[in-house]
Amino acid sequence: MKKIMNNPSTIVEEMLSGLVISYPEMIHQVADSRVVAKNDQVEQVGLVSGGGSGHEPAHAGFVGAGMLSAAVLGDVFTSPTPDQIHIAIKEADQGKGVLLIIKNYTGDVLNFDMAKEMAAMEGIEVESVVVDDDIAVENSTYTAGKRGVAGTVLVHKILGDAARKGASLQELKELGDRLVPAIKTIGVALRAATVPEVGKPGFELAEDEIEYGVGIHGEPGYRREKLQPAKVLAEELVTKILADYPEKPKEVGVLVNGMGGTPLMELFVFMNDVQSLLDQESVKVTFHKVGDFMTSLDMQGLSLTMIDLTTKKWQEALESEVHTISW
Amino acid sequence: MKKIMNNPSTIVEEMLSGLVISYPEMIHQVADSRVVAKNDQVEQVGLVSGGGSGHEPAHAGFVGAGMLSAAVLGDVFTSPTPDQIHIAIKEADQGKGVLLIIKNYTGDVLNFDMAKEMAAMEGIEVESVVVDDDIAVENSTYTAGKRGVAGTVLVHKILGDAARKGASLQELKELGDRLVPAIKTIGVALRAATVPEVGKPGFELAEDEIEYGVGIHGEPGYRREKLQPAKVLAEELVTKILADYPEKPKEVGVLVNGMGGTPLMELFVFMNDVQSLLDQESVKVTFHKVGDFMTSLDMQGLSLTMIDLTTKKWQEALESEVHTISW
Repeated sequence: MKKIMNNPSTIVEEMLSGLVISYPEMIHQVADSRVVAKNDQVEQVGLVSGGGSGHEPAHAGFVGAGMLSAAVLGDVFTSPTPDQIHIAIKEADQGKGVLLIIKNYTGDVLNFDMAKEMAAMEGIEVESVVVDDDIAVENSTYTAGKRGVAGTVLVHKILGDAARKGASLQELKELGDRLVPAIKTIGVALRAATVPEVGKPGFELAEDEIEYGVGIHGEPGYRREKLQPAKVLAEELVTKILADYPEKPKEVGVLVNGMGGTPLMELFVFMNDVQSLLDQESVKVTFHKVGDFMTSLDMQGLSLTMIDLTTKKWQEALESEVHTISW
Repeated sequence: MKKIMNNPSTIVEEMLSGLVISYPEMIHQVADSRVVAKNDQVEQVGLVSGGGSGHEPAHAGFVGAGMLSAAVLGDVFTSPTPDQIHIAIKEADQGKGVLLIIKNYTGDVLNFDMAKEMAAMEGIEVESVVVDDDIAVENSTYTAGKRGVAGTVLVHKILGDAARKGASLQELKELGDRLVPAIKTIGVALRAATVPEVGKPGFELAEDEIEYGVGIHGEPGYRREKLQPAKVLAEELVTKILADYPEKPKEVGVLVNGMGGTPLMELFVFMNDVQSLLDQESVKVTFHKVGDFMTSLDMQGLSLTMIDLTTKKWQEALESEVHTISW
């Protein structure tokens, strides 16, 4: 294992420290916690997300005006504990309630739910939205149902915009629940991630092999085959995602997300192929985003996310200005 | 070689296409060229940079209000041709002259100089600043003197701010020439980059080996040794950079730059160690930046850049708002 680190057992604390010292004008670490909160909390519904570490910049990179109020970090690929999530809820609460945005993993759902109950006992109104955008497989490792992956960041963005504009907790919950089925993602891996505490890749792919549909913790996908040109990868992912909509969308937003070890050049080449395919399908792309948003440590690969923008007025929310580290 | 691509010979065109379709509200490709320009050119001195591809997001990611007017892309690790640079100069010129920001490689310096002469013959006033921030080695592959690397992005930012505020061509040239010696960088590689046309890494490092001082095209560094903890890497780089200043700076800005294949988690761990070392040295860090800015394809590793902010008033210019893809 070749990583720039000191000790697997302190890597999350050191990363968190590096993050908060780098952007003190924007965020801070809540004392004695693994919670990153925005400095200027305003009177609005608080938005809290989080999950295991190793997905940077998610979620702390999306804390700031127009996106999250606070993010809570677990160990690498491990849900944060209920008490930590509880701290994040208290930090985010400005008297208007708090919405939790949870990626669909059994551990996360359980722990966020427990934290919700702890906060409710203190009189904080809390609702939650569970994101399960990964259409690759059902009932994967770590979860019942579909997994929550890169599309979660679009949920942060759109709900963050609505919260800033004064939406109520109930309105945000309803918006979130409408939003999630409109967002679909599939990933492809060229090389697995190496968890620092483990020291070797989560699975092995041969030098000419890729795997479609892997999760962001190295969960199994749905097919392994020889490395294909970007066009072929794009066709596989675009076709599967479009087919998963009840009706083919007329307009979409596209997020091409790097997994942590993939250069930007390759992500742009892939976006170019996605655009060509969607042009052929007469699907208009009205929003594009390319970069690392929801990574899997040093995994080489990417995921493609689409959001149906045909009838929904989410375009403006996606494009609004934010003040975060990584959007 | 495992890359998400179609054909090495078209990778730059495809990347460029993917880039411009993704951010049409901000940038466009100048017709029949490899020039990316900002949409809303305003009356100011034009700033042009560029170089070989493979360093994304440099330089096209820094085109926009408050940074570059235009960027010109060569083939992978190959200088753009004078005619392409000439197109960029013409695009950037708004009647107040154009400043070229050139990384110090023999090919780039030659080609940018030829383009400057071509533009001068058309009556466009052009000056240039050559950035040679890499203090690792002198007279490396591809260059006489020191190489230009990640610190170039800080030059884009500070000159971009000054140009926006109305500085004249001569003032920008003088500011650039004062700025360059204040900026110092060293890199360290864990794994070399693979050029698509070549198909294998530029050099081999053993599974437990790193190389200090490598360039962004895989040029040799100054020492190879066993992989060290992040703290030790940080100490090596911080010590070398501080020693290179005639007098130890009291205040610095720090840029921790990923080389393309390095996860953000590791960059933040490293930044945390750099901050501790500078605290011990009583050097105050008044500006931090962490991420991928000047990459080397899929190289695993990072570079550390410092800018002396002791007496110079560049803080505000570093912090000012910009409208670019990647700052």
